[in-house]
Amino acid sequence: MSQPIAISPDRLLPADPGTRRIARDLLQRVQDLPIISPHGHVDAAVIEHNTPFPDPAALLVSPDHYVTRLIHSSGVPMDRMRASKVAEPDSRDVWHQFCKAWPLFDGTASGYWLRTQFSSVFGLETEISAETADASYDAISAKLAEPGFRPRQLFKDFNIDVLATTDDPLDTLASHEALAQDATFHGRVLPTFRPDAYLNIDSKDWSENVDRLIATAGDGGTGYGAYITALENRRRYFVERGAVSADHGVRTPATLKLDAADAARLFERARSGQATAQDRNDFEAHMLYQMARMSVEDGLVMTIHPGSYRNHHEPTFNTFGADTGHDIPFAVNYTEALRPVLQDFGTINDFHLVLFTMDETVFSRELAPLAGFYPSVYLGAPWWFLDAPDAMLRFRSAVTETAGFSRSSGFIDDTRAFCSIPARHDASRRIESAFLARLVAEHRISEERAHELIVDLVDDSPRRVFKL
Amino acid sequence: MSQPIAISPDRLLPADPGTRRIARDLLQRVQDLPIISPHGHVDAAVIEHNTPFPDPAALLVSPDHYVTRLIHSSGVPMDRMRASKVAEPDSRDVWHQFCKAWPLFDGTASGYWLRTQFSSVFGLETEISAETADASYDAISAKLAEPGFRPRQLFKDFNIDVLATTDDPLDTLASHEALAQDATFHGRVLPTFRPDAYLNIDSKDWSENVDRLIATAGDGGTGYGAYITALENRRRYFVERGAVSADHGVRTPATLKLDAADAARLFERARSGQATAQDRNDFEAHMLYQMARMSVEDGLVMTIHPGSYRNHHEPTFNTFGADTGHDIPFAVNYTEALRPVLQDFGTINDFHLVLFTMDETVFSRELAPLAGFYPSVYLGAPWWFLDAPDAMLRFRSAVTETAGFSRSSGFIDDTRAFCSIPARHDASRRIESAFLARLVAEHRISEERAHELIVDLVDDSPRRVFKL
Amino acid sequence: MSQPIAISPDRLLPADPGTRRIARDLLQRVQDLPIISPHGHVDAAVIEHNTPFPDPAALLVSPDHYVTRLIHSSGVPMDRMRASKVAEPDSRDVWHQFCKAWPLFDGTASGYWLRTQFSSVFGLETEISAETADASYDAISAKLAEPGFRPRQLFKDFNIDVLATTDDPLDTLASHEALAQDATFHGRVLPTFRPDAYLNIDSKDWSENVDRLIATAGDGGTGYGAYITALENRRRYFVERGAVSADHGVRTPATLKLDAADAARLFERARSGQATAQDRNDFEAHMLYQMARMSVEDGLVMTIHPGSYRNHHEPTFNTFGADTGHDIPFAVNYTEALRPVLQDFGTINDFHLVLFTMDETVFSRELAPLAGFYPSVYLGAPWWFLDAPDAMLRFRSAVTETAGFSRSSGFIDDTRAFCSIPARHDASRRIESAFLARLVAEHRISEERAHELIVDLVDDSPRRVFKL
Repeated sequence: MSQPIAISPDRLLPADPGTRRIARDLLQRVQDLPIISPHGHVDAAVIEHNTPFPDPAALLVSPDHYVTRLIHSSGVPMDRMRASKVAEPDSRDVWHQFCKAWPLFDGTASGYWLRTQFSSVFGLETEISAETADASYDAISAKLAEPGFRPRQLFKDFNIDVLATTDDPLDTLASHEALAQDATFHGRVLPTFRPDAYLNIDSKDWSENVDRLIATAGDGGTGYGAYITALENRRRYFVERGAVSADHGVRTPATLKLDAADAARLFERARSGQATAQDRNDFEAHMLYQMARMSVEDGLVMTIHPGSYRNHHEPTFNTFGADTGHDIPFAVNYTEALRPVLQDFGTINDFHLVLFTMDETVFSRELAPLAGFYPSVYLGAPWWFLDAPDAMLRFRSAVTETAGFSRSSGFIDDTRAFCSIPARHDASRRIESAFLARLVAEHRISEERAHELIVDLVDDSPRRVFKL
Repeated sequence: MSQPIAISPDRLLPADPGTRRIARDLLQRVQDLPIISPHGHVDAAVIEHNTPFPDPAALLVSPDHYVTRLIHSSGVPMDRMRASKVAEPDSRDVWHQFCKAWPLFDGTASGYWLRTQFSSVFGLETEISAETADASYDAISAKLAEPGFRPRQLFKDFNIDVLATTDDPLDTLASHEALAQDATFHGRVLPTFRPDAYLNIDSKDWSENVDRLIATAGDGGTGYGAYITALENRRRYFVERGAVSADHGVRTPATLKLDAADAARLFERARSGQATAQDRNDFEAHMLYQMARMSVEDGLVMTIHPGSYRNHHEPTFNTFGADTGHDIPFAVNYTEALRPVLQDFGTINDFHLVLFTMDETVFSRELAPLAGFYPSVYLGAPWWFLDAPDAMLRFRSAVTETAGFSRSSGFIDDTRAFCSIPARHDASRRIESAFLARLVAEHRISEERAHELIVDLVDDSPRRVFKL
Repeated sequence: MSQPIAISPDRLLPADPGTRRIARDLLQRVQDLPIISPHGHVDAAVIEHNTPFPDPAALLVSPDHYVTRLIHSSGVPMDRMRASKVAEPDSRDVWHQFCKAWPLFDGTASGYWLRTQFSSVFGLETEISAETADASYDAISAKLAEPGFRPRQLFKDFNIDVLATTDDPLDTLASHEALAQDATFHGRVLPTFRPDAYLNIDSKDWSENVDRLIATAGDGGTGYGAYITALENRRRYFVERGAVSADHGVRTPATLKLDAADAARLFERARSGQATAQDRNDFEAHMLYQMARMSVEDGLVMTIHPGSYRNHHEPTFNTFGADTGHDIPFAVNYTEALRPVLQDFGTINDFHLVLFTMDETVFSRELAPLAGFYPSVYLGAPWWFLDAPDAMLRFRSAVTETAGFSRSSGFIDDTRAFCSIPARHDASRRIESAFLARLVAEHRISEERAHELIVDLVDDSPRRVFKL
């Protein structure tokens, strides 16, 4: 029994009719503004080469850890959805798994984004269901085969103004350069410096990564000094190619200022595999401090994404690799952890430090008070599991009374799912409108100011915070 | 001045008229479904013997730690409400204390359940008050004396389908067997294996308990090996008598996999009173891991109820015993604690691990992400202090966007107050309806799907998760 | 472009029309009740001497760390707003900075209080803006110059019944005595005993403070014994001059019962600068226990305000001193920390222990369960960053279902901004009305009971809890 896809123009707006009326007007104000995406995981090469999208499953299911994890939780083995080191699933079968599992997504953020895409991007008129799996597979496939349904055209159709990617420090950024020089392409695709694999001693192949880093950019030196120099050089390389930020996916936001000799000693100990757990923690905290110091010097906005226990289920990691749905958050504190950095750089206006969290408890307790004093500190938009309607409202409720609206980063989609970008930004705009509408309805801000604020949140904030 | 008891048919439903209309329809869908109670503390013998209920105070006040704690907080000494080791309070006086204290319960979950019972179960027409204490005592007493007002008739009137009790591993389960064989009784009363007193070294008489356990079920062996064997044997005994779950009231959910020799060494050290605090923690974490391993083998659903500082006020414990209102929650983390178990058993579909918490911060941060990946992990319904309308809505808001609706356990009443069971399940159904109605009103799910989901949450989920 | 200031009579009330109607009626019930302020930071001497208020900036901007911190976060250096050790800013320039920054305050608690003051206390008719900075400066200045615009007249106009100050243990309390004996002054201005600087070993000049304390009130003794005696003596001095409470701004609520010899040993070690971090923690936890013991003996209500990392940004502290906007909260636990005190004194009805927090996570997890059992424990009103409309609603939602309404302290304004007192109490009354109105609309309490409860929360609770 097939149902029409229902995408109400009032979706995500408050139920109270008076408040909804206010929210609708606010939304209308920003609905057609261009998309600014200062942090995400789209591959620049795909845009450069205007690579056609693969089949529906390979586009929308297999690579999306939000989607495969929930289907997996219902008992479907991961190898029915994802390529492992030894086998690849059949796309049509993956799609069938997905369609059968579709009811699991009711009420989830992923379900919301997918339904919106199905309707708005792929033009489906029928709700996904197991019964119609082949029909929806074929309909989306046909769409994907259309000549206009390529990354560059969608980039334009989606009204994307700026899109930042996330890149390895040794990436040549050739695709970014090619796009910048391509007179036929009008968007901005900017690289982001992401040095985790060179800073986190526990990452796979850390020492080999460091070898390559020093060899590539160490100005012929060796040891800790060349390591620092190479990082500075590669950051400059990124800045010259349009990067505006450096991103840090650390376990915790601990920072520590060591003198160079102590840091060098820990570095050598780690290089020779002799570092204790304490050594590693200290060295990484020191390097996060160093990244802040470099951001002060080269102007790259510093974003921190901490608090995820990566690859919680080792057998899944061993077979399917990282980013396969079992990174699990844990409690993180910022107040004490960031003090060394904030003592030294916190009041430098041009240093922008954007703090993200998956631990909601720090919204009101730590992040809003920090951002409400330090000119360098900005509230990162609700991230990952919190990038969802109710969670975004909880974020605004928790931070606004302390920090107002001026200290937040603007929406960040953080996605590798290119076709979901409009749905995500649209959802954020709806929720910001809903929140502001409530404040208007409760006579806490004027409707006129709300109309200014919604534009500020959607358009000005990300440009200002990310120096765009 | 006596007031009529007001029990609105719209109680707990959202105030917004449009949303309320949706919620009403959802509620209607499930209002007459049978009660499934997969975890609680009713005594099976009371049902077996169809024991008449005692007087109003001994039924509704003295044994209910939710009730006596709040009266106690207002300054009434505990011995005016509860039997101590040396004295027993007069029931009518207890009832007077309660009626005088009744305004304290405004806005509380306990007050809500009690008022609902007074009206729906006991047929009172007048609100409880100090002035009418004798009248209400007499009215309830008269009801309790009616021949139809016995456990078996109420079991039927309450429309209870399944009721699980909580039992000592050495319990003979005679009452459960008698009920199962009684052709005149049509409900299911199932035992639950609760081995805390045999696993937690700090519990009163742990070593004596272990002696009895090994003597009863250790197959003639001694030491750690016989201890493990005895636990396995008693679990089998429970399974054979209808048990579907094993419950663990641990301090923290820490788990640890030790090899048998190390575990045996810690066991012996604890038996001889030589165990350090670290030894005890390690042993208990190891035993929680063993319980998971046994659940994988024998199929008992594993439920974990951690994070309560039991018997916080020692003088009250010494005089009145356990479960007297001063178990106080504290912060607990699950992400790291459960990793050893989830590494080994997390992706076994038939292993069901239901996680409860009184620390709301883990709802969005840890539990929903865990349940949204591991097929074994289920979200336990809001528990204890969180088993209340606003808290239940916070739970749904915190977990649904990540884990959807399919990963939750269904409502658990966790009560020893038999007459409160319908009020508790009714409250839960109202709140689930309220939550779903909001999603419908915000165009996040269709009304048709909400009608399917409400039935799933109330009826299918507990059957599926608890293998009923 | 100048906008009128909009102060709706329905501000902060729920948007749903039916619920708002109920809230309006509740608010009306308490809108004219006198203000009871059992904890704050107004200077008694200002009231005694009826000191004229300074200029607008020195009254409303420079001393208010809520205000300067947010302007500072926008990049305005602190010395443009606050006096440092070497310079003082020009008042009119400070006011210009403030007016320019006014849009930052949209949605904040501070913005709400200020706007209300501008309209209700200063009679401004035009919204603050950079363009009208001089006009608003002049209008407020003119108001401040009016003979009736003095502390004593405002005290009366604001309808303040009781106002507690916060005082150093060695303060002579001369102003309090003068006011008490002044037949022309009808309010009550009560001192509060705040011994942090004498208990916290890390505070500036602790040892010198202790010298002065012992010299003043140690009955001629020396060492730890005289220290304890002196504290007891000064508390008695405060009690005799009307104090009803002792306030403790501790880092954590840890308590510890040491015997006198051990305590004396730690005391001497600290006095000679030999104390380790552990020694200091133990000594301070012991002294918090001692403060509880003294409260039991002398009847002073004990209030605890823990969990703030004071002076997070050392350079700002070094230049501008304490209380300049960079005290940042962190996670604190109460369940284990307070156990020593609650074991010994928790069930003494006349001991009143009011617990405040900036860590919302403990509302439902720890504070409500503690206050719902121990007759001594009261829930402090939402404090500091949480003293704001949404946060106050979260507080009520988090605690009421467990602890009801009887266990909360009533509103505490905690302010040094005298002219903001009516706006703060008014906001609290609106939010309490909003919360109760929702419970009525959801048929959880009767409208009649809500009308009793709102009076209890606003008027009776603070009198009862603070023994006024």
